[in-house]
Amino acid sequence: MEKTTTNSAPKIVIIGGVAGGASAAARARRLNEDAEIIMFERGEFVSFANCGLPYHIGGDIQDRSKLLLQTPESFLARFNVDVRVMSEVISIDRSKKTVTVRSMLDDHQYTESYDFLLLSPGASPVVPPIPGVDNPLTHSLRNIPDMDRILQTIQTNNVKHATVVGGGFIGLEMMEAFQQRGIKTTLLELSDQVMTPVDREMAGFAHAEIRDKGIELRLDTALSSIEYVPETHTANLESGESVRHQHIHGHLSLSLSNGDQLNTDLLIMAIGVRPETTLARNAGLEIGELGGIYTSPHMQTSDPCIYAVGDAIEEVDFVTGEQTVVPLAGPANRQGRMAANNMFGHNESYQGTQGTAICKIFDLAIASTGKNEKQLKRDGIDYEKVYVHTASHASYYPGAEIVSFKMLFDPKSGKILGAQAAGKDGVDKRIDIMAVAQRAGMTVEQLQHLELTYAPPFGSAKDVINQAAFVANNIIKGDATPIHFDEMANITDEQILLDVRNPAELKNGHFANSINIPVDELRQRMDELPKDKEIIVICQVGLRGNVAYRQLVNRGYKARNLIGGYRTWAFAQQ
Amino acid sequence: MEKTTTNSAPKIVIIGGVAGGASAAARARRLNEDAEIIMFERGEFVSFANCGLPYHIGGDIQDRSKLLLQTPESFLARFNVDVRVMSEVISIDRSKKTVTVRSMLDDHQYTESYDFLLLSPGASPVVPPIPGVDNPLTHSLRNIPDMDRILQTIQTNNVKHATVVGGGFIGLEMMEAFQQRGIKTTLLELSDQVMTPVDREMAGFAHAEIRDKGIELRLDTALSSIEYVPETHTANLESGESVRHQHIHGHLSLSLSNGDQLNTDLLIMAIGVRPETTLARNAGLEIGELGGIYTSPHMQTSDPCIYAVGDAIEEVDFVTGEQTVVPLAGPANRQGRMAANNMFGHNESYQGTQGTAICKIFDLAIASTGKNEKQLKRDGIDYEKVYVHTASHASYYPGAEIVSFKMLFDPKSGKILGAQAAGKDGVDKRIDIMAVAQRAGMTVEQLQHLELTYAPPFGSAKDVINQAAFVANNIIKGDATPIHFDEMANITDEQILLDVRNPAELKNGHFANSINIPVDELRQRMDELPKDKEIIVICQVGLRGNVAYRQLVNRGYKARNLIGGYRTWAFAQQ
Repeated sequence: MEKTTTNSAPKIVIIGGVAGGASAAARARRLNEDAEIIMFERGEFVSFANCGLPYHIGGDIQDRSKLLLQTPESFLARFNVDVRVMSEVISIDRSKKTVTVRSMLDDHQYTESYDFLLLSPGASPVVPPIPGVDNPLTHSLRNIPDMDRILQTIQTNNVKHATVVGGGFIGLEMMEAFQQRGIKTTLLELSDQVMTPVDREMAGFAHAEIRDKGIELRLDTALSSIEYVPETHTANLESGESVRHQHIHGHLSLSLSNGDQLNTDLLIMAIGVRPETTLARNAGLEIGELGGIYTSPHMQTSDPCIYAVGDAIEEVDFVTGEQTVVPLAGPANRQGRMAANNMFGHNESYQGTQGTAICKIFDLAIASTGKNEKQLKRDGIDYEKVYVHTASHASYYPGAEIVSFKMLFDPKSGKILGAQAAGKDGVDKRIDIMAVAQRAGMTVEQLQHLELTYAPPFGSAKDVINQAAFVANNIIKGDATPIHFDEMANITDEQILLDVRNPAELKNGHFANSINIPVDELRQRMDELPKDKEIIVICQVGLRGNVAYRQLVNRGYKARNLIGGYRTWAFAQQ
Repeated sequence: MEKTTTNSAPKIVIIGGVAGGASAAARARRLNEDAEIIMFERGEFVSFANCGLPYHIGGDIQDRSKLLLQTPESFLARFNVDVRVMSEVISIDRSKKTVTVRSMLDDHQYTESYDFLLLSPGASPVVPPIPGVDNPLTHSLRNIPDMDRILQTIQTNNVKHATVVGGGFIGLEMMEAFQQRGIKTTLLELSDQVMTPVDREMAGFAHAEIRDKGIELRLDTALSSIEYVPETHTANLESGESVRHQHIHGHLSLSLSNGDQLNTDLLIMAIGVRPETTLARNAGLEIGELGGIYTSPHMQTSDPCIYAVGDAIEEVDFVTGEQTVVPLAGPANRQGRMAANNMFGHNESYQGTQGTAICKIFDLAIASTGKNEKQLKRDGIDYEKVYVHTASHASYYPGAEIVSFKMLFDPKSGKILGAQAAGKDGVDKRIDIMAVAQRAGMTVEQLQHLELTYAPPFGSAKDVINQAAFVANNIIKGDATPIHFDEMANITDEQILLDVRNPAELKNGHFANSINIPVDELRQRMDELPKDKEIIVICQVGLRGNVAYRQLVNRGYKARNLIGGYRTWAFAQQ
């Protein structure tokens, strides 16, 4: 930690009153009763539940006031923090250690000095310069006023159809919110999958769920231009009311990259966020290559008196050690607390971000931690992978759902590189387990020994994680030779496909050119198979396939088992 | 690993066809197609879901056949394992490497040789020699026939009231099963708490739930004697039918240790289980001090050709390194797999048992991993503890429930010693996280940095575990001076109690001699407090208490914060 002025009661100025900023303010006060703490927030609200906004729009959170976790008054009473909302910090003078503040209520400007400054400005929605994007029916969602505007548009424009651009967290949550309100919804996604933290084949579970719930999902589709077709305005333009006034009726005519046209009553732009760095940049603070504010592991910027946390910063990736930008609430909150600690000499280091994330998509949860396969490929990191599909708890107890689980690991050391899961129950638990195991530096060998809670309503004697570890270790030890779903397109004449499921199961889909011998008949019928070809064993999830595979190799056949079975392949097509 | 005969296709004999035995048989076959594998099971069924038995009695699992996971036929077809049910192994000749088997169908005896023998006999219910215990209305529950007998008694004896002796897993599950069937139920427990894996105060959450659901819970109560009062027998005793024949009407008159009498229609003895070691003992295998079969980390008994797994063995405790007996399904299954691996030269070591366990008690889950406080005290291990009570997911999203969480750790190194949790949602997840963290050797310092899945339906930006870690680290670093609920009985004249909750909250219970200053008024009213006394700060869960505590110590007061707040104290009284 670089040396900073020590002061028994420093003056701390915080820019941004949500997540990281609010955490830092509260922690700083607990550490020191005499420090002067001022928190500037450009918006009207501090410490609101930004992750809850889509759920209020969808109706799950009915009471809007539940989103307002703290008020300036409550912050003052409890933490003696001087919270100034509607106050934009417009510049930082690092030599004088002052900030210039503009009150958005009366445009009054003034300066405020600091001993320590904390930047927690967050990230702002990216709105690309699509022709026609600036219209009164197009919104993004970052804060309470955005949410209020969307709700107002739904009401005043009698919205029957909404379009969401972008299949990330906010896009998916908004899609679900609209569907819950009975609004027909189209989701446009430029890439070939939603939820980029997971790999394409795992996103297939999301795609299936999204389509199953009646959403029109258009992958590989960009929004080219927008035409705003006003019908009636109740806003009085002549009297000077802005066109953005919401008492408006009309629709949007969207032109898509494939030439299609789409009429919609409401458009949400949710293609991503960009770190808010203008203030930091203008103050000459170092900006990283990825466009976030550079921070040391102590959460200090290139100026040791200025800390920065949250969505605006670059931090260290836990797996690769490279810089990364991860706009997530958990890291922001912990970084805020840590920045306050370090202002008071605690000398704590941020331990890197895994990017652990989860999203509810209707009845499905989809989650990940660590690196995904796309990233590992891009970074040239050697990896192996396994898939298992296993009941969330004892399958004989009511309510069990399949957890579809992918684990990425170093094929030599067995070190965990990342994990992904999708399913209707127990997904958060399995990814949390993996997030802890990865952070602790565990290997897939060690995962075999995990001793997790088991009773029929909660788990299985061999949990999803144990089972994935068994498969991974079989591969590492050479007890299993895998073939993966993405290699099934390249089957040669030197290979034959053996499906060991029961004939009835094949009706729901199978590889056209496969032989079917149920696993329990294989011992008797093994001589039907050629010894000079490689036998690709297929079952539903890979478990019976492994039993058959072992029989075959123990009898001198060449074989591979389709890891994760037909189910993995099938959802990859979704 | 001690040297054992290597043989490319050994003959493997397995005693016991559930959990560990069945896992070993399946794994051995996958490793070797030529091995001869014979599995002897004394009962009628192999590989049944013993953990599911109470849930069939209670009606959650309606279809009895769902409990039968495998049959001898399915085991033969899939794994080519020669399963012999109703076959009791009555002796082992270690010098000849043979076992003597008695067929329970025709009493025929024969010997079978082995290269490797696996003992997986399990544990049997302890039935104490209480006068009158041998009667047709008293049952224990270990297997399918036991379950069938209980169901038959319920039907034939028109059971209106049942009594369960023992508040362990099976006792609690049977209590719930009876309640679900509309049977009035009394639970007798000799000690002052149910669910001994957790500490007394955490069991308070279970006691409250049990009483809330209308169960008569009698703690500190032993069953002294039983009088069987037959009303009518439909069994024909004169024709030689046993008194155990179930077509019976009658009741039991129970005499309790406190002098009370209790009439009941059905009695379940569930006071615990004892490792089945007769066969091992008679064969001269080493038995540990705790009464289980001694095993090495390779799952070998004192005879290297004989392995043993599951409820019958002694294994190493993960935390203390001492021998322990832990009758749980998860370890049994993994040990079985490992024993098979080691028979084929894999040289794997069992990594010790944490005793991770969970029990559903009506709407509540209660779970633990590692050592509890009782054990740490008994073993003279230095520890500190924290309690937090935090929402299972974002409190503004519907369905959040309080997770009441206790963490035990080394006060110097911060090493995790154990964790316990109770609540209606997310309990399994938090204990799984702790089980992984403990197994990985993490400290509470590291727990602060855990990056767990967060979206409002699944978690919080600062999870239960992060929060507990923050409190623990505050204590380790001297930023918090704790007082615990169990010290509240010893308040002296040199201490005063300060309750910082809002006045309305005190109506649901508070310490009679406490001063009430709400936390948000404390700054203004601090001079009402004496500086020469130690101020014990109390709030509902310890969070506001910490805010107040910090204000006080930062202003030069002597203070302690009641960790886990009033809630921890209140449930300890349950």
